[in-house]
Amino acid sequence: MILQPIADMVALCAKKGIKHAILSPGSRCAPITLAFARHPEIHSRSISDERSAAFIGLGMAQQLDKPVVLVCTSGSAAYNYAPAIAEAYFQQIPLIVITADRPPEWIDQWDGQTIRQTEIYGKHVKGFFQFPDNFGHPDMVWHANRITNEAINLANQYPYGPVHINIPLREPFYPEAWEKFEFSREIRCIDPIMGNPQLSEESKQKLIASLTKFKKILIVPGQQRPNPKIQQILDELSIGNKAVVVTDTLSNLQSSYTVNLHDHFIGNQELADELDPELIISFGKSIISKSLKLFLRKSKAVHWHIQTEGYIPDTYQSLSKLIHCAPISLLQFLLKEGQSDLSFVEKWKGLDYAVRKKLDAILDQAEFGEYKSLATLMRNIPAQSKLHLANSMAVRYVNFLGERPQEIICNRGTSGIDGSNSTAVGCTFTTKEPVVLITGDLAFFYDRNAFWHNYPMTNLRIVLLNNHAGGIFRLIDGPAKQPELEEFFETRQRLSAENLAKDFGFEYHLANDERSLEMGLKDFWCKSIHPKILEIETSSLQNAEILKWVKGKVAECL
Amino acid sequence: MILQPIADMVALCAKKGIKHAILSPGSRCAPITLAFARHPEIHSRSISDERSAAFIGLGMAQQLDKPVVLVCTSGSAAYNYAPAIAEAYFQQIPLIVITADRPPEWIDQWDGQTIRQTEIYGKHVKGFFQFPDNFGHPDMVWHANRITNEAINLANQYPYGPVHINIPLREPFYPEAWEKFEFSREIRCIDPIMGNPQLSEESKQKLIASLTKFKKILIVPGQQRPNPKIQQILDELSIGNKAVVVTDTLSNLQSSYTVNLHDHFIGNQELADELDPELIISFGKSIISKSLKLFLRKSKAVHWHIQTEGYIPDTYQSLSKLIHCAPISLLQFLLKEGQSDLSFVEKWKGLDYAVRKKLDAILDQAEFGEYKSLATLMRNIPAQSKLHLANSMAVRYVNFLGERPQEIICNRGTSGIDGSNSTAVGCTFTTKEPVVLITGDLAFFYDRNAFWHNYPMTNLRIVLLNNHAGGIFRLIDGPAKQPELEEFFETRQRLSAENLAKDFGFEYHLANDERSLEMGLKDFWCKSIHPKILEIETSSLQNAEILKWVKGKVAECL
Repeated sequence: MILQPIADMVALCAKKGIKHAILSPGSRCAPITLAFARHPEIHSRSISDERSAAFIGLGMAQQLDKPVVLVCTSGSAAYNYAPAIAEAYFQQIPLIVITADRPPEWIDQWDGQTIRQTEIYGKHVKGFFQFPDNFGHPDMVWHANRITNEAINLANQYPYGPVHINIPLREPFYPEAWEKFEFSREIRCIDPIMGNPQLSEESKQKLIASLTKFKKILIVPGQQRPNPKIQQILDELSIGNKAVVVTDTLSNLQSSYTVNLHDHFIGNQELADELDPELIISFGKSIISKSLKLFLRKSKAVHWHIQTEGYIPDTYQSLSKLIHCAPISLLQFLLKEGQSDLSFVEKWKGLDYAVRKKLDAILDQAEFGEYKSLATLMRNIPAQSKLHLANSMAVRYVNFLGERPQEIICNRGTSGIDGSNSTAVGCTFTTKEPVVLITGDLAFFYDRNAFWHNYPMTNLRIVLLNNHAGGIFRLIDGPAKQPELEEFFETRQRLSAENLAKDFGFEYHLANDERSLEMGLKDFWCKSIHPKILEIETSSLQNAEILKWVKGKVAECL
Repeated sequence: MILQPIADMVALCAKKGIKHAILSPGSRCAPITLAFARHPEIHSRSISDERSAAFIGLGMAQQLDKPVVLVCTSGSAAYNYAPAIAEAYFQQIPLIVITADRPPEWIDQWDGQTIRQTEIYGKHVKGFFQFPDNFGHPDMVWHANRITNEAINLANQYPYGPVHINIPLREPFYPEAWEKFEFSREIRCIDPIMGNPQLSEESKQKLIASLTKFKKILIVPGQQRPNPKIQQILDELSIGNKAVVVTDTLSNLQSSYTVNLHDHFIGNQELADELDPELIISFGKSIISKSLKLFLRKSKAVHWHIQTEGYIPDTYQSLSKLIHCAPISLLQFLLKEGQSDLSFVEKWKGLDYAVRKKLDAILDQAEFGEYKSLATLMRNIPAQSKLHLANSMAVRYVNFLGERPQEIICNRGTSGIDGSNSTAVGCTFTTKEPVVLITGDLAFFYDRNAFWHNYPMTNLRIVLLNNHAGGIFRLIDGPAKQPELEEFFETRQRLSAENLAKDFGFEYHLANDERSLEMGLKDFWCKSIHPKILEIETSSLQNAEILKWVKGKVAECL
């Protein structure tokens, strides 16, 4: 049984530039699976655990800036996609989620693998589309094409995001030997041509009037992909003392001109007044530093956010202008019209410089633990790498360490620990550069099914910070003081990655002091047909002490 | 910061008879976690992977026939519960799902671990309850108590199911050392007293009039827990030729008087007319046998379903009476008033007997593979065991093999492979009898995080049928004929459980022929401080051939 509209939906995906699909095995989805597997322009991969499959798709789309298709069978399979779909929604990553379903008459009749799939992802998709369940009338064929066009266009429209197409299918699912499988030649494609909103002269005049009031301008870029053009303007703004540019690691906009080490001083109450801006300008998504967030929320400044379109949150509780244009357009305007007091700029830069000058030396003196190991590692990672950071401590440590040449990737849409491995695995399917994942033991073992497939990921390098617990809970005051700390917060666990490495054919090295870390790093970046794991084993108790000690030492420099 | 209404919600859970909670670590949920961990009458366990946590809770509630509480933090954690919640909904298992959330003002402001949790489980919970986010007015405290009462009552009301309480929480989350944590003494509990609907005299008279028309009565119990009283009546119905009782393995109502081996002959078209009933009477949930389902859908019979209350599906497309009473009440009535033609009854019993007489001998002659191994195993499992069967082949093979003394448990609500291990692990937390899980390699590795916790499960015995693929796809015609079979349907995978056994401290034995199977079974049931895995390695190609061969041999006996 060949359903031509299913084949043609796949052909339309290809026509719209989709090159990759992640399929999870199932019977109900067979007509969709076969069409993707057979399309010459789409590379399909099969991943059994749908939770991982969806994060792998997300990891690919994150890099490709194009939608990746997910296909799963009916039933709870669809719900295993949900964590990645929520992440894609808030991280604004385009995914075309295709779920096979029973036809409407068999929903709620106690048949196997049947749940209520209509709008199953609730408010975490940009759109839900129900595919026709038969093609007896020509309008149904038109509807199938129309839906597919609309879904893909919606996913691709800024802010990007996941869309869901639910496809009811009746048996038989498989073509007979005599049936000829082919894609139609003529498939209607509805092409969107997107504008690129720039600041109008009128808006500029209005903005100038407002801007002249502010002499303490703080630019805070949120999470985004690297952008050399924006980087250059930010550097110029910083060099020309037009504004202070505070970039955390998620922004991918750090340079030697920007303030990167704010996490070391921003929480210091005594400095708050001198650092307080009058105007906060942001673009991009969220930031990682909780201290910076709290500082900005306490600030008396007003906040302008630049974003071409879509919903804008009030992250710092002081939003007063929504500037709907390309960020670069506003930044160029700022370069011309903005100005900040030298004392304000110098205060920020001075503090950043003070930390920058001492941090390495302080870490050199620190005892062996996560913090120091990461400092060593950071000097060591090839600059062209894609650097994936897991929630929760990995991304924070890297942020403490400042400027990076690598592209930083982290699932900060929902900030879950559930898909870090899979996201990095997805990344390896898109690049030949090293893909480096720095992760903690909870995130790592949580998502171990990321590696359960048959596709090479030779450029994957995993640095596992194993303190046998959710160490972050010992680093914050509240839980550390409760008797339930170890069982219910840290959740101590005894696994090492050694057996997992055997299972999935990874090279494995254990480091538990400086010498073994050095040994482990020696040929860690060398090419191999195997992915590699470097497990750094530390004590969460000691890590907490070291973090405190470093904080104290840094405070002395300020 | 102690929130008394949170503590009192937990105390109310205890007062309503809830004894177990599965907590997953997080910071936002800390006030809830602490209250559960500190309640003297509730046993709390910490499980890191929320997907497993929820299935573990389900596995417990399945056995306890009482709600189990799940607690997780905000964000994608909640979505990782979703597969188990859908399963609980359709399997009618009571769960109290408690998710911590940001307060309303911080939703959609790009804060970490924040998604849109309101009604996140859509149509897969019996009710959604939003907890108050502050307790400034006494009505808010009343509301918190009211919601908790309502949620637990709803979960406990037939048909059982999951309910969701979403609790917004503001910082601080942790009590200070000087704060005294205690549960209130007086907590209002709204107690439901349930009726037990029996057939009225009037209904009986009406039913007698209908019943006398039918001389070919087929009773088809669906999935349910063992029930000796119902079992006895069914046996009497069968002995007295009042009706044919066709029980598959999910019914837990098989005996030497019931027809259990129908899967071996029900698909035979030549027998269809003689086997065709005039009246189908069902109670309980779904059945496993697809052949029986198709046979009943083709039948000209009318279908009566017995269920005290709630939605009744039309599984066999011939539903004509919804009998709202306790099944036992209708069955007793049937014992008095029902009658079937002897030739009809004897046809069914004769075929069942013919298979019963030969099946063991045929399997003895069969080559080593999954089928024969399971036959050997089945003779070997202690009768008091709880026998968990994974989807998809494990439960089918066991159904082919007929009558069992063990309680059979299988997640047939959604029939997913995603939580079989965890469900069995949950079961070990409720019983000292052996908990035996028979599973395939895809289901087993999919849910391997089931074992990632620190609680003993010494009575767990896992029989892993490892054919390194989703072998079921080779057993059905459609996919077996497609060139995509191995990559996209079977999804070949090379893992064995040996390394996993090392990781989690299981005893491990590999069987790949009859001798090693015998060796493996020798002390498999002996007590140990370690759980045990018996891995039976077979070839999916050969298994397919053996299944065909057995089918052929059985057909010769009919």
